[in-house]
Amino acid sequence: MSYTAPIKDMLFCMEHLAGLSQVTQIPGFEDAGLETAQAVLQESAKLCEGVVEPLNIQGDINPSSFQNGKVTTTPGFKEAYQQFMAGGWQGLQHPADFGGQALPKTIGAACVEMLNASNISFALCPLLTDGAIEALLTAGSDALKATYLEKLVTGEWTGSMNLTEPQAGSDLALVRTKADPQPDGSYKVFGTKIFITYGEHDMADNIVHLVLARVSGAPEGVKGISLFVVPKFLVNTDGSLGARNDVHCVSIEHKMGIKASPTAVLQYGDNGGAIGYLVGEENRGLEYMFIMMNAARYGVGMQGIGVSDRAYQRAVQYARDRVQSRPVDGSVAGSAAIIHHPDVRRMLMTMRATTEACRAMASTAAAAYDAAHHHPDAEVRKANAAFYEFMVPLVKGYSTEMSLVVTSLGVQVHGGMGFIEETGAAQYYRDAKILTIYEGTTAIQANDLVGRKTARDGGKNAQDIAAQIAKTEAQLLASGTEAAQSMAQRLKAARQAFLDVVEFVAGKAKASPNAVYAGSVPYLMLTGNLLAGWQMGRALLAAQDQAALGVDVAFMQAKVVTAQFYAEHILTQVPGLRDSVLAGGESACALPLDAF
Amino acid sequence: MSYTAPIKDMLFCMEHLAGLSQVTQIPGFEDAGLETAQAVLQESAKLCEGVVEPLNIQGDINPSSFQNGKVTTTPGFKEAYQQFMAGGWQGLQHPADFGGQALPKTIGAACVEMLNASNISFALCPLLTDGAIEALLTAGSDALKATYLEKLVTGEWTGSMNLTEPQAGSDLALVRTKADPQPDGSYKVFGTKIFITYGEHDMADNIVHLVLARVSGAPEGVKGISLFVVPKFLVNTDGSLGARNDVHCVSIEHKMGIKASPTAVLQYGDNGGAIGYLVGEENRGLEYMFIMMNAARYGVGMQGIGVSDRAYQRAVQYARDRVQSRPVDGSVAGSAAIIHHPDVRRMLMTMRATTEACRAMASTAAAAYDAAHHHPDAEVRKANAAFYEFMVPLVKGYSTEMSLVVTSLGVQVHGGMGFIEETGAAQYYRDAKILTIYEGTTAIQANDLVGRKTARDGGKNAQDIAAQIAKTEAQLLASGTEAAQSMAQRLKAARQAFLDVVEFVAGKAKASPNAVYAGSVPYLMLTGNLLAGWQMGRALLAAQDQAALGVDVAFMQAKVVTAQFYAEHILTQVPGLRDSVLAGGESACALPLDAF
Repeated sequence: MSYTAPIKDMLFCMEHLAGLSQVTQIPGFEDAGLETAQAVLQESAKLCEGVVEPLNIQGDINPSSFQNGKVTTTPGFKEAYQQFMAGGWQGLQHPADFGGQALPKTIGAACVEMLNASNISFALCPLLTDGAIEALLTAGSDALKATYLEKLVTGEWTGSMNLTEPQAGSDLALVRTKADPQPDGSYKVFGTKIFITYGEHDMADNIVHLVLARVSGAPEGVKGISLFVVPKFLVNTDGSLGARNDVHCVSIEHKMGIKASPTAVLQYGDNGGAIGYLVGEENRGLEYMFIMMNAARYGVGMQGIGVSDRAYQRAVQYARDRVQSRPVDGSVAGSAAIIHHPDVRRMLMTMRATTEACRAMASTAAAAYDAAHHHPDAEVRKANAAFYEFMVPLVKGYSTEMSLVVTSLGVQVHGGMGFIEETGAAQYYRDAKILTIYEGTTAIQANDLVGRKTARDGGKNAQDIAAQIAKTEAQLLASGTEAAQSMAQRLKAARQAFLDVVEFVAGKAKASPNAVYAGSVPYLMLTGNLLAGWQMGRALLAAQDQAALGVDVAFMQAKVVTAQFYAEHILTQVPGLRDSVLAGGESACALPLDAF
Repeated sequence: MSYTAPIKDMLFCMEHLAGLSQVTQIPGFEDAGLETAQAVLQESAKLCEGVVEPLNIQGDINPSSFQNGKVTTTPGFKEAYQQFMAGGWQGLQHPADFGGQALPKTIGAACVEMLNASNISFALCPLLTDGAIEALLTAGSDALKATYLEKLVTGEWTGSMNLTEPQAGSDLALVRTKADPQPDGSYKVFGTKIFITYGEHDMADNIVHLVLARVSGAPEGVKGISLFVVPKFLVNTDGSLGARNDVHCVSIEHKMGIKASPTAVLQYGDNGGAIGYLVGEENRGLEYMFIMMNAARYGVGMQGIGVSDRAYQRAVQYARDRVQSRPVDGSVAGSAAIIHHPDVRRMLMTMRATTEACRAMASTAAAAYDAAHHHPDAEVRKANAAFYEFMVPLVKGYSTEMSLVVTSLGVQVHGGMGFIEETGAAQYYRDAKILTIYEGTTAIQANDLVGRKTARDGGKNAQDIAAQIAKTEAQLLASGTEAAQSMAQRLKAARQAFLDVVEFVAGKAKASPNAVYAGSVPYLMLTGNLLAGWQMGRALLAAQDQAALGVDVAFMQAKVVTAQFYAEHILTQVPGLRDSVLAGGESACALPLDAF
């Protein structure tokens, strides 16, 4: 069953929620209006639907394999990657100086979503390259930029992020990989990195590893970590490839999902030391790595949205085709396609509403990113940066947690057939489970939301957002339709719950850290639910207006229904989460360790 | 990481919640008191922990395989089954007349849980045999009973349930398998059955297929379905095995989980007709099949509880061992085992509280089953039957839906390691997904709860249960402890939500079927959450009392904490579900079909 990129909804988000027309007022983005967006999305859809998506199930059946230090990717991946590269897709959001297309993230994010909807395993390779580009752009020397950036932006070479070691996962303070300074200014790197996505593969000529390591004599903990570029092949001064560097893949993991994406164990320096180049200054590695991480976290959020949409589309198709049982309302005589059954509708609407809400939330975050990075006015940049920073843990945490719900419903709609691998629904369920884990687990996102994004400013940014939500509520009430009233009512209850929790989190994070952090994930889920719901409220208003103008009436009416469904079935969960956060810290931590 | 059967908690449930001492007042169960229960559970635990559980991961790595019409089970399964049989475990709950041990379900259910915690794939074989035994006991002729029951009760032969056909899953009205009457009173059966668990295997000498089929000339729909026994090998009059019957396995499925359990496509009658024997009367097959289904549904609920407990135990062990990051409260200097982190505690407590609550709910249901079937007083039987019938869709639906949450958290606690198959956590996540599907999807359970269990009596039974919950609330309030107050408060809010929904469901099921049935699964989740929480409220009271008496104080205090956690983190979700049920029917079904 084929995939259709949801271009219409993506453009709706850009136009009516993210404010693409304001993005085009930012210098450099003048041409990135709706027409450009449409053209780019259509081209992207061609590649994704026609080339990348058909390889998804192949990657599951015939995963990347490892032999004698080499990784062979799924047949077809290499050729698809060539097409991806030839289309310039890697450079979509990157500076023209290095061969990129310098489009806003507001547009680029939609392309990332469809690539991931088509094939998470494939899309991971460009996602990691994006992270390497961001790090070099921000902190790399001119020499590093000159040597690596253009090749990365074209996709000729790919990137990898090397953080994790066997003893150092979420806790990077425990990183032990060493870097010894050499007389020529380079370093020799020694250590073992695990869980390195596309750490080795056969799709590109070179791999640019970004590696966290400690320079000899550096302080302990996170303040002694530096970031290095360690290329698989050294690069000659003329830009050609030189000697093989001393970094080698020793195995890849046997995983539950995203099987086509090779997850490598990399051994650095077993034969004298891998040659690495410092990025920025010594001991500031974690700071730079967070630049990559933040880009990657947003990207993983898009993976959650992408796989959710894919699961939804497959479930809808099955529900249209599968005939089983009479509808309870007698609307069809005899057995009917299961899409006629109310519970199947509820499942499909849950999948649809969640996906659209997360897409809407991510789209507004992308526009904030563009303004935060490129707007000429410093105040505007600052305000947008604060909003974007608040959104990153939600785009990552909420969208991916919900992708578990959505892909599970996708299997459920298929009944017994969903459990049979040939059907395809099970793969999304297995693939999605990594999304709540890598690039910072949901708990790590929630810690970020609690600590840096809420407690640090005493909840001010959060309260500002709540005030904006209140404005949307007023508009909904003023509109007077039943759908808008229902949305306003649920938004209000959810916003009040949010304010209660923000007060609790901001007020007690220092005095009662266990109570607050035990509620951190429920707080994240509450906030993600509300902020995605807020965008659905805005979408409802915009869709009503457009329908009244006679614009694409069927689409707009469907948006109104979907928003109302979100309000009545998903926003309704928010007050219960508030109760858990406020009451539940003590009982969460009260059990003595030996009683477990 | 090894499995430890939760014998102490199982006995707590039997003694303090299910009322085992009352069960022993039922004629036939006089000896089935706490001492017997303990002895049986300890023996069962030995087999499960030592023999069956170690095969679980083997079954995933080396699933059942199919070649030339034969299924070869995972190495070790056959030997383990021999031990299961030799221990008399198949006959635990079956009549002594046919070689069983005639123990109450209150005790037997605990053994079923531990077998499933150890190995769902293995446990499915006895589960299906149980269903066949129930059907024959209820509706089989004396001749059928004499021929088959003892062999099934000893486990020498196994059973299978043949309902599904390619076009007939949830909708059995579409069954097309035919049965032609023969002059000797037997039938010749023709057709294809799919998704037949243990429909073919090498663990027993014979397989007794219970098959739904239509006698030539029978009415259309569910009223024309009859039930047949079709043995793999015909049985001679002396009880020895005769000719191979004309039923053949043509393939087995490639599934996401429970891979060791062969899921067969069975072809009946390709070589002249499979010889079958009518069970009970013609055209009453569905009625008999529901006897098997009800037994099996309860059993699948136990699978959900078992796999949840297994996932919990593995996650606790990992959380104790894995050292990562400093605790937010500074209670440990430097990095600590992740069990010190509040969010890990929240995840483990969610897994623990959910599992214990579902176990408590299932245990009380089992005691009601025993009284419903064996109590000398007809009124007592009737009241208990009503309660048990109400509980079956909850034990099945809620416990299995929650097992998806629990096994997902199990992976999450493991972080990146959870996604690596070698760790074992991923298998539970994959295995569990079938539980919300087979033996009636969650939607089918929810339809049952709405239609037969709530609307049919105008909500009376549901309201009676609510009145009992109110009594528990009063006891909690009277006890005065903080934990009891918290539980009483949440129970009250949840009970009121339940009453609101019952009124809606009972009042509108006929007039607004779409609105009611669109809320059927949220209604089921709400009700399961409440009824499991109610048992946790009762458990809290009992544990407080026992602790005050000095009985096993550490265990009892842990139960109080776990119950309070359930109240504050899980019962809190109930009011939101009410809001969805009451408000959400319209938006769930409003989207035009072509807008999906």
